[in-house]
Amino acid sequence: MTYCLALNLDAGLVLLADSRTNAGVDHIATFSKLFTWSSPGGPGAAPRAIAVMVAGNLSVTQEILALNDEEIANSRFDPDNAPETILTAPNMFRVADSFGRKMVDVQNRRGPALTAAGVAAASSMIVAGRIGDEPARIFMVYQAGNFIEATRDTPFLQIGEAKYGKPILDRVLGVSTSIEDGVRAAILSMDATVRSNLSVGAPLDLAVSRGGGHDWTRRRIEAHDPVYQQISNSWAEHLKAGFATIPELPLIP
Amino acid sequence: MTYCLALNLDAGLVLLADSRTNAGVDHIATFSKLFTWSSPGGPGAAPRAIAVMVAGNLSVTQEILALNDEEIANSRFDPDNAPETILTAPNMFRVADSFGRKMVDVQNRRGPALTAAGVAAASSMIVAGRIGDEPARIFMVYQAGNFIEATRDTPFLQIGEAKYGKPILDRVLGVSTSIEDGVRAAILSMDATVRSNLSVGAPLDLAVSRGGGHDWTRRRIEAHDPVYQQISNSWAEHLKAGFATIPELPLIP
Repeated sequence: MTYCLALNLDAGLVLLADSRTNAGVDHIATFSKLFTWSSPGGPGAAPRAIAVMVAGNLSVTQEILALNDEEIANSRFDPDNAPETILTAPNMFRVADSFGRKMVDVQNRRGPALTAAGVAAASSMIVAGRIGDEPARIFMVYQAGNFIEATRDTPFLQIGEAKYGKPILDRVLGVSTSIEDGVRAAILSMDATVRSNLSVGAPLDLAVSRGGGHDWTRRRIEAHDPVYQQISNSWAEHLKAGFATIPELPLIP
Repeated sequence: MTYCLALNLDAGLVLLADSRTNAGVDHIATFSKLFTWSSPGGPGAAPRAIAVMVAGNLSVTQEILALNDEEIANSRFDPDNAPETILTAPNMFRVADSFGRKMVDVQNRRGPALTAAGVAAASSMIVAGRIGDEPARIFMVYQAGNFIEATRDTPFLQIGEAKYGKPILDRVLGVSTSIEDGVRAAILSMDATVRSNLSVGAPLDLAVSRGGGHDWTRRRIEAHDPVYQQISNSWAEHLKAGFATIPELPLIP
């Protein structure tokens, strides 16, 4: 399984993905699920920072990414006549739609054989980014290629094992949260998931794009990273300490 | 949907259930999902405290409980020749098995027609209790009537929307947790679920049986209960305050 989340804050984009994949419990491996592109722009194309995170059937999502890479590579041979790619699309809606169409293509091509083999073809993606002066946007692309966009009321999206880490986001996150607190919230949401579900695990991939910019700061966080461990442990301590501060519910009111 | 949890602590049993049921989002109602029995014992039957919590198809679980009630009522007419009931079973394993067999009966009887109508028959139950001097035990009964028992390593069981409220239990709960802290943990686990998932909602039903005893203290907690609200709010405050205390993860290590 997988857990990936994206925060669209006024201060910028924060993306975090685990890297555990498994086919059954006896075939567990590490694959990055976070992919980023950044472009300074060029003739007819505004500068941009784009990212994708993937969940579900690994062969399906790898094929979608391969098709995307091929499209970009092909466009370099004859830029003037090349079809639109995520590096030339005029807005993030078209970028999300580009991944949605590839999802449909791959599901159509592989779905029947996967179903016949009793293998789930279900997949989903988070597409995030900022093009030119457009505000940053985040989308969730479903298996059918349709997609939704997060709004300011709930400025985050999750794919994969999303439930364990949702309560902390619901309580602490808003569009005005700072990048630093957004990273903290994302790490705590991921840590709750990793602790409660074996199928989600470190190393973690973090990507941040500060508001207005078109580049990504990426960082891989290993399980033994001292700051990650310190965050995890000090939060656990804080939760335990909180028990002493909340009122007791009398059994007889 | 539903969220119910049971803690088997050295100090006693703590059970908490929400009461929201829904058939689609436009048919939402309140049904208690927590049922308790206590008996001082009698000829050939040790004293006992027994409880059941239910999740899944409401018609299936109501029928299981009706069969159980009928069995108990029938046994009163001719106690000497009555088949075993949950009030006369010699141990909790037989009580769990009694509910498991009724699950199989009802699934066999109703399952095909439900499946034909496109309605999920899936159901599960938590069976908890203490008979005579036997230590308290908690079981999870699955749709197929099979069941597992919680052990001292992980002294809690959950049914329904279990993921939102699992991280807090994983972090703070152990067999040596007091009843008061167990109730706090259960309320916080439930509150995280209620906040993150519309299909789980108050009023809540709480039942506690202190170690060694054979009776239940039951309490219904309404959404507007002042202590419940105080717990919920002070925990939210505590979580937010914790953000200031945990280290910042530098984007460039």
